[in-house]
Parts: sequence; C-alpha cells; structure tokens
Amino acid sequence: MSEEKQNKTTLIVFSGDLDKAMASFIIATGAAAMGHQVTMFFTFWGLNILRKDQQVPVKKNFMEKMFGKMMPRGPEQLGISKMNFGGMGAKMMKKVMKDKNITTLPQLIEMAKDLDVKFIACQMSMDVLGITEDELIDGIDDFAGVASYLSEASEANTNLFI
Amino acid sequence: MSEEKQNKTTLIVFSGDLDKAMASFIIATGAAAMGHQVTMFFTFWGLNILRKDQQVPVKKNFMEKMFGKMMPRGPEQLGISKMNFGGMGAKMMKKVMKDKNITTLPQLIEMAKDLDVKFIACQMSMDVLGITEDELIDGIDDFAGVASYLSEASEANTNLFI
Amino acid sequence: MSEEKQNKTTLIVFSGDLDKAMASFIIATGAAAMGHQVTMFFTFWGLNILRKDQQVPVKKNFMEKMFGKMMPRGPEQLGISKMNFGGMGAKMMKKVMKDKNITTLPQLIEMAKDLDVKFIACQMSMDVLGITEDELIDGIDDFAGVASYLSEASEANTNLFI
Repeated sequence: MSEEKQNKTTLIVFSGDLDKAMASFIIATGAAAMGHQVTMFFTFWGLNILRKDQQVPVKKNFMEKMFGKMMPRGPEQLGISKMNFGGMGAKMMKKVMKDKNITTLPQLIEMAKDLDVKFIACQMSMDVLGITEDELIDGIDDFAGVASYLSEASEANTNLFI
Repeated sequence: MSEEKQNKTTLIVFSGDLDKAMASFIIATGAAAMGHQVTMFFTFWGLNILRKDQQVPVKKNFMEKMFGKMMPRGPEQLGISKMNFGGMGAKMMKKVMKDKNITTLPQLIEMAKDLDVKFIACQMSMDVLGITEDELIDGIDDFAGVASYLSEASEANTNLFI
Repeated sequence: MSEEKQNKTTLIVFSGDLDKAMASFIIATGAAAMGHQVTMFFTFWGLNILRKDQQVPVKKNFMEKMFGKMMPRGPEQLGISKMNFGGMGAKMMKKVMKDKNITTLPQLIEMAKDLDVKFIACQMSMDVLGITEDELIDGIDDFAGVASYLSEASEANTNLFI
C-alpha cells in the first residue's frame, strides 16, 4: 500500500442532520489537518448543508418548489437526528456548543474549504430535489455523479457513509 | 495493494428507507459497471427491500406476524428517511424521479442482479424479524452471517454501512 | 498490503439506537473473533450505549442535566431506529431476541471487552452532552478526539460509520 493511499479519505454525506453534518466536517477537517486528501460527496439531504441561507430566484416546477420550501436552507436551519422537537433540540445543541466554544458548522465548512477538502455535489440528487448550482454556496469543486465518487473512493483508505 | 483489492466494494444495507436503498443500489450498480466485484449484505430493515410484494403463506408466531405486517413488503412500499409524512413523501419522490426518467429502485435491483452484484441476506436478522427465504425475491446468492460479510470486507477496498 | 492491515477494523458508533448498537457490536465481536484488531469510537448518541444504568451524582449545569435526563442510560433503555412507538418496539425486539436465544446487547458489550475490542469515547461529544467519565461503564480504553480515531482508521482495512 502506497503512502498516498493511506492519506486519502472520502465521505459520502447523505444526511442533512446537524449532528451528522458536524460529525462529517469534524472528521473531514481532522483528516485534512493530518495531511490527508479529503473528498466529501454531498448527496440527497446532505445537499441542504451546502444551500445558501437566502432564497435564490430560480425557475422551478411545483414539486421542486415544494421540496425547496420544506428542506432546510443551509447549516443554520438543520435539525438534529434525535430529540429535535421541531428545532428546539437543534437550538439547544447549538447553544451548548457555543457556550463551550466548540467550532460551529459554518466555521467547520470554511475550515474545510481552507484545508482544500474537495466538495462534490451529487448531480442526480440536485436534479431530483430541484436544487440548482446557484442555490449552493460558492466553492463547490465539482458537480458529478457516483462514478466520480467511486474513483476517489477506490484510491482512498478510509471511506465512510454518513 | 493488488489490483483486485482496489476493485472490490461491499455495502451493508441496514436501512429500509427508499432514499437510502436508492443510494445503496446506485453505488452498487455504479461500482459493478466500473468492473468492481460488489457484495451487498442486507440486514435488519434492509431485508424489507428484498421482500416479495405479495403475502407469502408461511407459518409464523404472533410476534413474527406482527413484524411481518408492520414492515414494508418490497421496494414499492418503502418510506423515505425524512419528510415521509405517512408515505406521501415517498410517493412524491417516486413521482419526481419518474418525471425525470431516473431509474427506479425495482429497476436498479434488476440491474444489480444483471451486473452480478452478490446479494447476501443476514440470517440472524431474518430470524429476529421472522422473515423466511420464501418471502424474499429470487436471486439471493447467500443466506449467511456476519463472518461471511467480514471475510468479503477484508478483501475489499471500499466498505460502507448504509 | 500487509497482513496486519487486513486484520484491523474500526467502527464509529454515532447512533444510540438499539438496532444499530446491536449491529455495531455484532460486527465488532465477529471481527475480533476472526482475529481482527477492532476499535470502536463512540460519539454523539452512541455514548448512551456506554452509560451506566443508574444515576451517578455529578455536578452539571442546567443544559447538561436536561440532556442527561432525556437521553437513555445504557443498553437496556435504548429505543430502535424504526417502529419504536415510545419504547414498545424496542421491548418487542428484545423479547423476540430473548425467545430466539440471541445474544443481548449487554452480553455483546461484555464479549467485546473480553475479546479486547478497544473502546474510545469521544471527548468532544462527552463535553457537548455533559457526560462525565464517571457516568460511563468501566473498561473504556481511551477518552480522545477525532485525531485518535483517524490514526486507527488509516491503519485499518474496514472502517464503518454506524
């Protein structure tokens, strides 16, 4: 096994829950800080982490509008996977993290970019959920499909589905 | 690292949600199409993806009957992991996918079989949930336990738990 | 690839659901029984699996007390990820498993310890959820962060996020 291979990590970020998104970015930035090449492949609900928080005027059909309205826009609106209670749980967790000076999700996303973590947004999921490139934050490295993820994963040592 | 190892992928399909089942089969068929040997190990709720859609007359105890009735029978009845709203969300998502000509889950399952993806059904989970071999679709390659999965995983490069 | 590497497995146990905890420990004990070196990294809700079932008198602030009360204390109190119905589902599943002589979660945890599976509790999650070392069962090998997990994972062949 080459040295390079040991130093490559990929994450499929399927979940759009705050707690799992935090876990994804803590792993990604941790690995990148240790010198790993890291690729995050955002698919399905995970795309919501990358949405801009303001509404972006794009043409959508009825279904796409509904998905767009019902899904959270960006890291500040995400719920948690357990004990969310209509958003109360997420608020509590964010308050606790702030009180304890833990890096926030928006900060982790910035750190990941600064550390050259590669962001791939799943083209098919964007199509299904009616999310356009304009609605996602800047700095996405690629809009691609599963083949793109798989070629990265086959070169990596640690591959996780979150 | 041998070439062979780079070309082996395993998936533990634990979830029985439509969205995660789709993700599993998109990864599996994608990897198989790229020439990987792919093994899917279906366990717990993931077994519901492999259930035949019609009721199969098998002898069950009270608990097994209850589990059997409450769990979805096959890909058409699965819910989605978020915004399911009693099945409405799953219907919406299937409609959107159909409108956009995205391969359906039943089609992906057929594709996986055609591409020689290996299906293993977890024997212990079948026992717990009271699911018999007759209730599962044809073409399951093996009914086995975790040891069988682990020996495949230790030969594979990409291993995911979904 | 060295023989050693093929024989190392790591699991991130993020979920605190009974069914996923069972899956984690079945994989961990199965791999350890096959001679693998196994590391389990317990983070977020997964920490609840390691909580002692009785209340431990520790000083906590208001938020930490709330989290402490709302989260399950140890394996006997965990819910299942689907069809839990306020704990009924978990009870049913435990009854079925008992009737079928399937190893229980507390037994699996003991087995894992006996097989020298390494338990790491995520320090940051403990901090966020206000869980102290005294509240966790004996036999935790390490209290550490993501860097500790990542160095194990980069040496392992099979790495799963559960």
